[in-house]
Amino acid sequence: MIKGVNLGGWLVLEKWMAPQLFDGVEAEDEYYLPRDLSETEYRTRINMHRANFITEADFLNIASLGIDTIRIPVPYFIFGDVPPFIGAIDYLDKAFSWAEAYNLKILIDLHTVPGSQNGFDNGGISGVQNWAQHSDQVDFAISVLCRLAERYGHRVGLYGIEVLNEPATAEMFQTMLDRYKPRDPEMALENAPITFKFLYEFYKQAYIKLREVLPLDKVVMFHDGFDISKWADFFKKNEFENVVLDTHQYLMIAEMKTGELTLDSYHQYMNEIGDAIAKVREFVPVVVGEWTLFNSLATGSDTKGGVSPVQQVFDQEVEIDQNNALSIYQDLWNLQIEQWQRVDGYFFWSYKINIDTINDKEWFGWDSWSLERSVNKKWAKI
Amino acid sequence: MIKGVNLGGWLVLEKWMAPQLFDGVEAEDEYYLPRDLSETEYRTRINMHRANFITEADFLNIASLGIDTIRIPVPYFIFGDVPPFIGAIDYLDKAFSWAEAYNLKILIDLHTVPGSQNGFDNGGISGVQNWAQHSDQVDFAISVLCRLAERYGHRVGLYGIEVLNEPATAEMFQTMLDRYKPRDPEMALENAPITFKFLYEFYKQAYIKLREVLPLDKVVMFHDGFDISKWADFFKKNEFENVVLDTHQYLMIAEMKTGELTLDSYHQYMNEIGDAIAKVREFVPVVVGEWTLFNSLATGSDTKGGVSPVQQVFDQEVEIDQNNALSIYQDLWNLQIEQWQRVDGYFFWSYKINIDTINDKEWFGWDSWSLERSVNKKWAKI
Repeated sequence: MIKGVNLGGWLVLEKWMAPQLFDGVEAEDEYYLPRDLSETEYRTRINMHRANFITEADFLNIASLGIDTIRIPVPYFIFGDVPPFIGAIDYLDKAFSWAEAYNLKILIDLHTVPGSQNGFDNGGISGVQNWAQHSDQVDFAISVLCRLAERYGHRVGLYGIEVLNEPATAEMFQTMLDRYKPRDPEMALENAPITFKFLYEFYKQAYIKLREVLPLDKVVMFHDGFDISKWADFFKKNEFENVVLDTHQYLMIAEMKTGELTLDSYHQYMNEIGDAIAKVREFVPVVVGEWTLFNSLATGSDTKGGVSPVQQVFDQEVEIDQNNALSIYQDLWNLQIEQWQRVDGYFFWSYKINIDTINDKEWFGWDSWSLERSVNKKWAKI
Repeated sequence: MIKGVNLGGWLVLEKWMAPQLFDGVEAEDEYYLPRDLSETEYRTRINMHRANFITEADFLNIASLGIDTIRIPVPYFIFGDVPPFIGAIDYLDKAFSWAEAYNLKILIDLHTVPGSQNGFDNGGISGVQNWAQHSDQVDFAISVLCRLAERYGHRVGLYGIEVLNEPATAEMFQTMLDRYKPRDPEMALENAPITFKFLYEFYKQAYIKLREVLPLDKVVMFHDGFDISKWADFFKKNEFENVVLDTHQYLMIAEMKTGELTLDSYHQYMNEIGDAIAKVREFVPVVVGEWTLFNSLATGSDTKGGVSPVQQVFDQEVEIDQNNALSIYQDLWNLQIEQWQRVDGYFFWSYKINIDTINDKEWFGWDSWSLERSVNKKWAKI
């Protein structure tokens, strides 16, 4: 049973997790940041961010918290071969040394691809999703995975490699279109959802290529494309070995699906999720690769599924005091941890978020995205 | 009894505590950083450093550790009136909100003055010490103190204001000359130690001016100028109210004075220090405003009084394993905490240091300067 945490917002940028990196620019995502800044300004911000946002001290702290595995989202340009982006492989190298020094394992997670697999602000470019339509870019993604496997395949600190984060199939594609508008509509002309047919083929191809370089004792992980029911027999049928299915489960999805902000509705939803995962787990090991404590109930306003203050600020409808927050978060921590006992592990999203909930009131409640803060606030107990 | 920690390296820069801020430049100190970088490069580095090095999450973590008071070193240009430096009062404002939200108190510590009071790399400009010879700069220092008192004097989060960090009197002045060479010898022509005569007068003047704006329930703190024996009757004689004497005690001083790197010699030295402080405490409350776990014994090489790898790298003479380090640090933690039970409080130096002891082997042992890391490594127990 893995007890894990994500290092979100470090090597793959998300504006809401480190807003100071985007000070004074229009850019909403990683794609436009180097396009809105001079080359030297971009380089300095990126270097300072990478050297400060996560450090050796964080790996030590994560280990002290009782976490054993870290999921590290990496961008497609990690090897430095896609200008104007700056490669980040030196930081992943450092991370492996830190992990091994502090007895942590790393799950490398390819979080973005050129043209994006989901059009999220964290998928490379907001409002654009055309990666799967470009076979050269599909091949490029596989080449990045293979290079990562070659570099780290024999490291003690490697737990495994996740092929692709959150490819958006039809239902999530619609949600993305509503939520993320493309800055350049031209770039969104080819937008289309990823089909399960494509995903099955891509996962087969990626698995075969990866296993050519990746030792069998290292896991290959696959995200469920937002539908865990599609995977029960897939892996056995195709003779994949030592693979794990990754499913992401957020309380905000419960809010959007039920239209309710009550503990009862979170409980009902998460119990159903637990049941659904348990069924699939009879066929393949499953981890919950992303989940969190954040929810609208404890912020006192409906965030429409977690729309963050960098996009839109919602008026607080209900005042939430510290005790109130404590009891909501403790309840929802226990609820989720209980369900995750039925699977093979979890990765909280995320370790850190650099916002100021005291001076910037609109961020009230958003610290529940941070495991470090949630533990220190006694909302979470690992 | 105060249990405190310093926020060193945040608003007053020290190259060894955040070396990435000085990447690619010759500058050894805060003075030359803006002179070696373009204006925009300097601004971006400073903004990113301030927004990342210490955040709300650190205040929460500090409170969770059991610390009650934070000593924040501030530079003389904090109000933004000394170009090319960038003011930092907005960050001190934030710090007060964070401290009050997490039930911490702040001791503001004026850590640098124009021309420097000690010529240290952390005193504004290395190898230069001429502040006391310029009455306009002495007045300027007092005006900064008074402006700080006006701004924060009525804040619940204010514990007190320390008039000046580590003015170097004759003995320490000699040490400084040996250790820090001026980059521009012209600027060092007026170098001279601070005399106790000057210090008595300056402290009297600063106290009177400060008390005009600072409520009596807020402490005024004075550093001992590296000789605690000079202060026994000073404060009562001059009718200072609610003042505290600050003395800094480092294990490296024991190493330099005794020429030995043994637990025995640290014990003997610190016991003597404890005795000396206890005597003065009969006259005035005393805190140890700086002390740490760092020592040469646990690094395996004589660091000549704590000369850091940004200045000189010493070959490791004795190999130190983890258990070895653990027992040395635990012993020296207990030794010092035991002595500080005899005074009115302590402030560990420092909360954080952003070095990489795993990938950069020359930093081995330097993480013992960080309270956060020392607690997580079980070297320290608050």
